[in-house]
Amino acid sequence: MSADLLIYLSIAAGVVGLLYTLWKSSWVSKQDPGTERMKRISVYIADGAMAFLKAEYRVLAVFVVVVAILLGVSADAKASSSLVAVSFIMGALCSTLAGFIGMRVATKANVRTTNAARTGLAPALEIAFAGGSVMGMGVVGLGVLGLSVLFLVYSSLWPADPHKVITVITGFSFGASSIALFARVGGGIYTKAADVGADLVGKVEAGIPEDHPLNPATIADNVGDNVGDVAGMGADLFESYVGSIIGTMVLGAVFLGSASFVQADTMLNGMAAVLLPLALAGVGIIMSILGTFFVRVKEGGDPQAALNKGEFGSSIVMIIASYFIINGLLPESWEFNGHQFSAMGVFWATIIGLVSGVLIGLITEYYTGLGKRPVVEIARQSLTGSATNIIAGLGVGMRSTALPIIVLAAAIIGAYTFGGLYGIAIAAVGMLSNTGIQLAVDAYGPISDNAGGIAEMSDLPKEVRARTDKLDAVGNTTAAIGKGFAIGSAALTALALFTAFMATTKIPSIDISKAKVMAGLFLGGMLPFLFSSMAMQAVGRAAMSMIQEVRRQFKDIPALKAALAVMHKNENKEYKDWSKEDQATFDAADGKAEYGKCVEISTKAAIREMVLPGLLAVIVPVVIGFSGGAEMLGGLLAGVTVTGVLMAIFQANAGGAWDNAKKMFEEGIEIDGQKYYKGSDPHKAAVVGDTVGDPFKDTSGPSLNILIKLMSVVSLVIAPLLI
Amino acid sequence: MSADLLIYLSIAAGVVGLLYTLWKSSWVSKQDPGTERMKRISVYIADGAMAFLKAEYRVLAVFVVVVAILLGVSADAKASSSLVAVSFIMGALCSTLAGFIGMRVATKANVRTTNAARTGLAPALEIAFAGGSVMGMGVVGLGVLGLSVLFLVYSSLWPADPHKVITVITGFSFGASSIALFARVGGGIYTKAADVGADLVGKVEAGIPEDHPLNPATIADNVGDNVGDVAGMGADLFESYVGSIIGTMVLGAVFLGSASFVQADTMLNGMAAVLLPLALAGVGIIMSILGTFFVRVKEGGDPQAALNKGEFGSSIVMIIASYFIINGLLPESWEFNGHQFSAMGVFWATIIGLVSGVLIGLITEYYTGLGKRPVVEIARQSLTGSATNIIAGLGVGMRSTALPIIVLAAAIIGAYTFGGLYGIAIAAVGMLSNTGIQLAVDAYGPISDNAGGIAEMSDLPKEVRARTDKLDAVGNTTAAIGKGFAIGSAALTALALFTAFMATTKIPSIDISKAKVMAGLFLGGMLPFLFSSMAMQAVGRAAMSMIQEVRRQFKDIPALKAALAVMHKNENKEYKDWSKEDQATFDAADGKAEYGKCVEISTKAAIREMVLPGLLAVIVPVVIGFSGGAEMLGGLLAGVTVTGVLMAIFQANAGGAWDNAKKMFEEGIEIDGQKYYKGSDPHKAAVVGDTVGDPFKDTSGPSLNILIKLMSVVSLVIAPLLI
Repeated sequence: MSADLLIYLSIAAGVVGLLYTLWKSSWVSKQDPGTERMKRISVYIADGAMAFLKAEYRVLAVFVVVVAILLGVSADAKASSSLVAVSFIMGALCSTLAGFIGMRVATKANVRTTNAARTGLAPALEIAFAGGSVMGMGVVGLGVLGLSVLFLVYSSLWPADPHKVITVITGFSFGASSIALFARVGGGIYTKAADVGADLVGKVEAGIPEDHPLNPATIADNVGDNVGDVAGMGADLFESYVGSIIGTMVLGAVFLGSASFVQADTMLNGMAAVLLPLALAGVGIIMSILGTFFVRVKEGGDPQAALNKGEFGSSIVMIIASYFIINGLLPESWEFNGHQFSAMGVFWATIIGLVSGVLIGLITEYYTGLGKRPVVEIARQSLTGSATNIIAGLGVGMRSTALPIIVLAAAIIGAYTFGGLYGIAIAAVGMLSNTGIQLAVDAYGPISDNAGGIAEMSDLPKEVRARTDKLDAVGNTTAAIGKGFAIGSAALTALALFTAFMATTKIPSIDISKAKVMAGLFLGGMLPFLFSSMAMQAVGRAAMSMIQEVRRQFKDIPALKAALAVMHKNENKEYKDWSKEDQATFDAADGKAEYGKCVEISTKAAIREMVLPGLLAVIVPVVIGFSGGAEMLGGLLAGVTVTGVLMAIFQANAGGAWDNAKKMFEEGIEIDGQKYYKGSDPHKAAVVGDTVGDPFKDTSGPSLNILIKLMSVVSLVIAPLLI
Repeated sequence: MSADLLIYLSIAAGVVGLLYTLWKSSWVSKQDPGTERMKRISVYIADGAMAFLKAEYRVLAVFVVVVAILLGVSADAKASSSLVAVSFIMGALCSTLAGFIGMRVATKANVRTTNAARTGLAPALEIAFAGGSVMGMGVVGLGVLGLSVLFLVYSSLWPADPHKVITVITGFSFGASSIALFARVGGGIYTKAADVGADLVGKVEAGIPEDHPLNPATIADNVGDNVGDVAGMGADLFESYVGSIIGTMVLGAVFLGSASFVQADTMLNGMAAVLLPLALAGVGIIMSILGTFFVRVKEGGDPQAALNKGEFGSSIVMIIASYFIINGLLPESWEFNGHQFSAMGVFWATIIGLVSGVLIGLITEYYTGLGKRPVVEIARQSLTGSATNIIAGLGVGMRSTALPIIVLAAAIIGAYTFGGLYGIAIAAVGMLSNTGIQLAVDAYGPISDNAGGIAEMSDLPKEVRARTDKLDAVGNTTAAIGKGFAIGSAALTALALFTAFMATTKIPSIDISKAKVMAGLFLGGMLPFLFSSMAMQAVGRAAMSMIQEVRRQFKDIPALKAALAVMHKNENKEYKDWSKEDQATFDAADGKAEYGKCVEISTKAAIREMVLPGLLAVIVPVVIGFSGGAEMLGGLLAGVTVTGVLMAIFQANAGGAWDNAKKMFEEGIEIDGQKYYKGSDPHKAAVVGDTVGDPFKDTSGPSLNILIKLMSVVSLVIAPLLI
């Protein structure tokens, strides 16, 4: 096999991924969206989501153009080329396109899932999962396709200089990271501003049930699920996926300096280690698609088991495939800088990555799962009030960092032992090799959640909501695992990019005993704290604007005001027992709420509030790199990665555990022989914990994944200028 | 001047410090303790404090003996000696003695402060501050004395091997750290268990006012102030003080390898850099004593201004003195390992340490001060409930890490630029040079707090409580600054010990690009999260036992039960309007509460809960050091120091800010044109924040100071075995 053939095969795999998304999304579109009312609501949500995307694209376009010009101008001709700007734009475009496709299908799949739930659980699962799999395969397909095409083009431009090819390609990762910043941080702010705003003023002040069409913020809330959990998560994993592949390519290029490697690699002329991550990713696409066929459930069956079968099934075939790919492509053994490497070593490093991803996911599930000890402990501490509930949740979150970090540390040492720095990077690729199906399962969650909301808003029979709730409950568990996986992969990707940064700057070491490095370590360690604080404040401010807008609508829109009055007048009666007149007044308000205004507020707030933390993430590494040098920047990256991962785990797990502690009361929980339900004092205390946990787990926590990767990739891009 | 003369002078300075404590403590003892009732209450508190100390000493004795044997046996004969065990025991003894003296006087000064407040503010301030200054001078006096004597003895044993002298002396620092662990972690658990227990069951369940003698936990609560804030803070600063001196000595000994240094240092035979920290500390004692004479307030004057005058006055004279000491002792300039050093450079490094200590204190005050923007923001967020109050507090805490870390990073780079690694260590000594007066001001706080409690329990007139409240309010600000100072000094001390560790193991670098170091960094970074979680859980469990004991007493002790019933019967009447019979029933309960039982519960819980985190701090560096090597241990230390400092600042400031946001409601606060008071809904929301913040700022946060220093010192002690 030649290098070109391998690239063409990668391109083919990317195209297969995209064909799958086309097929699945047209299948989803063909399903019945249900009643008129359901269609109308789903259009509101879809329009809101598109409104957010459009607003985001406007800012994005400016940002991308400015950065592309800066990149093009500042590119150092020797090691890089102004084409790095082209890579950047391509990365941004691919990520944007993946997000666009995913959101579009998700906002179609939600209402069709609701409609399918009218007949049964199995067809509903099928549609929700199909919607998720479009996001999943879109991400991996565009990632592999974009990278492969760039690689092919640049290789034909500089056939004799593979280092230059790879250096210029790093811009692709930077583009992906920039979009991830907008999607994840902006999306996180959007979704929580809408959620908190809708809850505080709708449920608490006006007394309207959740997901009720009278609440002007309810559409924004449902849009938020798509914006934050579908597009945000997709962009996050796209960034990890692309970042880990590129980091590994940079480190693989190091072996071009090993005579024993180049001699043995007759097939690919010493490029085997560079192309291996693309080959693994390409095969991973096929395995993920295979995995989706395992996801089937019979009526009355367990959706969780079906999803697990898909994920674990594809993991197992991926392990087998990796064995053959790695041993087929890499030389059996080689030597570099006095160290001995082997294909089997690289294989083990890949497995270490895959296994530690699964482990971190399972640990996350333990700390946040319904009925598990940590969550029960938080529920128990709710008996003495909200303060003890909060303390318990913070404690669980902090404690939950221990095991994932031990897994991560062991993975770092293990992967390094088996494959050196290249081993650490390829472990990230291993962890992310089945991103396709992982993300399909992740995105399935918010689609089911939306489906439930639409069922509620469309006055469908109770059994429909019961079915969507069952899908949603499974979605919560997969979301928790997905968050753990996203953090773990972000950590390994950041490390891959970090080692690639060192390889590029050619600094021999990053020595903590030097004052600059130590100072960099402290400064870097502080950034996740500052970043989290900014994200939380942003949610607070945006929620405040949302509250004011909802209050204004309740006051200024006569139909809404009248409907609210009628509702309160008939507080204890069901709708069918109301007077004809009251029913008419109430019905007249339908659709009178100005959902678009609320969507606009969340959109504007998200875009505005994202700027400062975003700039911080991009500018700090540049300033430190040029003022303090590459080694201090290395210290900064190490600091931001370590505390970033810790704070991300802490916040995600505390938030997840609080959420489920609250849910345990809603399902009814027995503590010390007494049973507690929704509405009890301990439940109210648990609601406080959940509200604190919301921005933790959905805004500030996940934003840190982006922070650590973005800072690493910015450093990698400016690395040639720091030599 | 010869080295011996300098040591004798240091011993003399230490003795002067101790004479001052003798003089002041006998002066305090001679003051009038007031009425019979006041005396009785103060005896309860003093006995409770001694009961804790005794229980602590029992466990301590076992711990010290076991560790001493291990140290003695494992000492490597070449670089160390089994006398390291003697140093360890001496360090433990000196710290214990300082804590004992400080607690004894504090528990005498409290009641005498109350009594003096019956006449006026000025005499009350005088006694409270005198009590604090005994703790302050006891700590610095015993620190300098203990170190100087050991140095003298070991120098006479090994006159030709100063390296061995210093290596063996490091055990002193380990001894100090071990006591600090017991005092700070145990004390922190003690004080919050008593506080939370007394509040939840006394104030909330039984409806008794704070500090009421009917509440069986009230004495334990007052004991807690002494145990946590006097003895705990004292041991913490003793550890920093001793650690920074020893770290600097180890690094100073490096210059014995510089020919130009040894040649120029004719006076002290190359030992000038080793002895400099002792000389600075010795002079610092005298300057601190001088400073105490500035602390005077006229009737109606401002106690804060008086305390500030003492602190800043002694800082300024210390700067001047440092200039002459450093230029007098060190050669004008010298060369080592290709780097140029100078006396003036070392002077500037010292000033950088001193100034950054003050800056970190001032920043802490900004983020936690009454009426300052961050605290007002938290108060405002209380309007929408406890959840938003919590989110705001967490946000403020996280954000408040930024400036102190920037100061710290600048200090590291600045001190290193002026004086290399030695500069970093001497900066810590500079920051800590006026520990004597700093600690006097710190310990003054809890004494005033106790004085207020005693006034309440003794039914003294309102103006007495008003005066003690004024002293206490000032104490809260100094406590916040003191906490910032303690964290800053812990960070620099840990760095000093860390660099000393590197100098001892002779590892050329701690290279983050090595997998082991990176893994160490992650593991180390995780420990403060785990440690904090353990400390918070410990408080939760201990408070639970306390609640059960108080409930039991209210049920089982007939006199208490009757008095409670009478109190509730006369709920809306003042005591003087009660029937004679009711008054008699109520009075009969006086002193019937079994305070001792509650004291015992807090004591036992504190000791028991401290074991696991304590062992963790001692064992982890040993395990990592021997299994992963010195460089991985270095990574671990860097990780634990960075996140330890961040988490300590985050928790201390969040807790302080929540506390004062609550206080703002108690004083009455106007938000958006509306005035809110104690008992309003926003105040209740703020109380939740305060309760969450209590273990943050008084248990888990301060414990991290110990964690980072203890792990560094353990590493330094085992360093000779890792070469």
